[in-house]
Amino acid sequence: MKIEKTIEWIKQDNLKGVSRMIDQTLIPYEYKKVDIDTTEKMYNAIKTMIVRGAPAIGIAGAHGVILAALESLNCSDFKSEVISKANYINSSRPTAVNLSWAIKKQIEIVENSNETNEKIVELLIENAIKLENEDIEINKKIGEFGSAVIPKGATILTHCNAGALATVGYGTALGVVRSAYEKDSTIKVFADETRPRQQGARLTTYELTRDGIDTTLITDGMSAYFMKKGMIDVVVVGADRIALNGDSANKIGTYMVAIAAKYHNVPFYIAAPKSTIDSSIKTGDEIVIELRDKKEVTEINGKSICANDVNVINPGFDVTPSSLITGIITEYGIFKPEDLYKIFE
Amino acid sequence: MKIEKTIEWIKQDNLKGVSRMIDQTLIPYEYKKVDIDTTEKMYNAIKTMIVRGAPAIGIAGAHGVILAALESLNCSDFKSEVISKANYINSSRPTAVNLSWAIKKQIEIVENSNETNEKIVELLIENAIKLENEDIEINKKIGEFGSAVIPKGATILTHCNAGALATVGYGTALGVVRSAYEKDSTIKVFADETRPRQQGARLTTYELTRDGIDTTLITDGMSAYFMKKGMIDVVVVGADRIALNGDSANKIGTYMVAIAAKYHNVPFYIAAPKSTIDSSIKTGDEIVIELRDKKEVTEINGKSICANDVNVINPGFDVTPSSLITGIITEYGIFKPEDLYKIFE
Repeated sequence: MKIEKTIEWIKQDNLKGVSRMIDQTLIPYEYKKVDIDTTEKMYNAIKTMIVRGAPAIGIAGAHGVILAALESLNCSDFKSEVISKANYINSSRPTAVNLSWAIKKQIEIVENSNETNEKIVELLIENAIKLENEDIEINKKIGEFGSAVIPKGATILTHCNAGALATVGYGTALGVVRSAYEKDSTIKVFADETRPRQQGARLTTYELTRDGIDTTLITDGMSAYFMKKGMIDVVVVGADRIALNGDSANKIGTYMVAIAAKYHNVPFYIAAPKSTIDSSIKTGDEIVIELRDKKEVTEINGKSICANDVNVINPGFDVTPSSLITGIITEYGIFKPEDLYKIFE
Repeated sequence: MKIEKTIEWIKQDNLKGVSRMIDQTLIPYEYKKVDIDTTEKMYNAIKTMIVRGAPAIGIAGAHGVILAALESLNCSDFKSEVISKANYINSSRPTAVNLSWAIKKQIEIVENSNETNEKIVELLIENAIKLENEDIEINKKIGEFGSAVIPKGATILTHCNAGALATVGYGTALGVVRSAYEKDSTIKVFADETRPRQQGARLTTYELTRDGIDTTLITDGMSAYFMKKGMIDVVVVGADRIALNGDSANKIGTYMVAIAAKYHNVPFYIAAPKSTIDSSIKTGDEIVIELRDKKEVTEINGKSICANDVNVINPGFDVTPSSLITGIITEYGIFKPEDLYKIFE
């Protein structure tokens, strides 16, 4: 089965090209791709979540560095120009480590190369496409390892969207769901709505119902109710940054689900590629949590849902401590949080 | 300070009258009162949540029995007609005990009276107005007792709306907030949005900001994040039905908050009148949970937020076990769950 890429580099004449991505702000109403052809547009596409999901914005970052190089081709200080623009793109969102990880990989190519500027652009394109293809392969491995922890006929709870849309294809948490579904079509998914941006309602239900997977939408306050009734067998979510001790930042609301899962003895898994693990930080306390626009909370589809003069704090993520995590599913296998450091050995 | 009633019986010519209530489906966009003058309209007003909140729908039920009596005045089998219509209204929503409690009080008047039908209507009106006034007095007592557990400068988390709008006036959980605020204007409130119906966003922020109380709106997945940061000192919520052992049914999502509060050692209080305690049931397992329309989850302001062919289960309430409850604040004082039975002694 050929997987359609959520985001991919499209080569055009000469060195030129664009980052073509599904506009995720339009789903489930419209399925449309947009071409991003400047670093400024890429900054905004990441910031406004036209592209979102930790692995997907990693690729967006890699594409952004190509655009930075194309924009700087005729500059005398080519390398420092590219790095400056790359850092600008990197500042679009702070929490997901994949963005800085992929940008760093591209910057290394720029810094370590003695080739012409044109040749460097070629190398950046080559590397970006390699990262795209690797992402899908990694997700399939995550899915394969993860499917082993899904009992026959299980109902899997997930939060936010760690699906094909959050990656280049197949998904991390939803990669586990897809792989489990390939082996057992009786599995079911409960999808948390995931306020404020509703990625669970808008994206996860869209992805899974298109694949024919039995999907039930619930609001973020409901999962404990269903856990108590014994209707949720396992929780699988993605991650945006994982500390070396296993503490995992993921979409706001994940932490409450993890506490509820612990309370009900429901296994709670993180599914993420090795690139999401930030080996430079020891615990989740060091993870910077993005604070986002108040309007994401106070407005839905452009209409206010509350009193005008209310205060809002809108953290985009929370950190689930390793003590609440049963295992971290990666392309190298499933690790207990306390063993996660071994992935670097 | 004269409290404006959320719902009240308005006398008209002769025995005639209407139940005048704030249309809560319009808040925060519009403040408008509607007059309900038939039992069928009352059934629909409760069902569609024009009036909602356990104590408020209790009063709506009491008014409904007056309307039932007015509609049955010329019936030969007056009493059985009234009781039949009263039971119809009682079937509008199953979880909040206050509805059946108030209807039962009115039915007792009908059954035990040897007066003329007209005189019975007068007695029903008299009793309904007495219940209205008592509700406000009870809430003020709840507020007074409850304010003692609010530390100076505390931030109080609440879920859904157990405010003036949920009662005849002043509120239960928000009665505690109001009473605490009268003594210490530095207290703050965090209001959970409370999907699917968003009573926290729509009603609680409206009520509290109108009173000048510092209010921050958060989504339902956020409270654990703020508890971990030490930004929430105490949780106070209402209840729709409380079992004799203290297990408390309240708006869906409450249970997740209670689990998170326990995990972070944040005190968790229920604020409710004695009439919310159902002495006929021993534990929360016996509480019937209302399943509501799928559209409440899939649509916001009339617009779909998800894939069309997704499944939905929409329980309106969940049950918080007594083991997660620090205390139950009533008009007779604050009870530990295990001592709650003493309120009937």
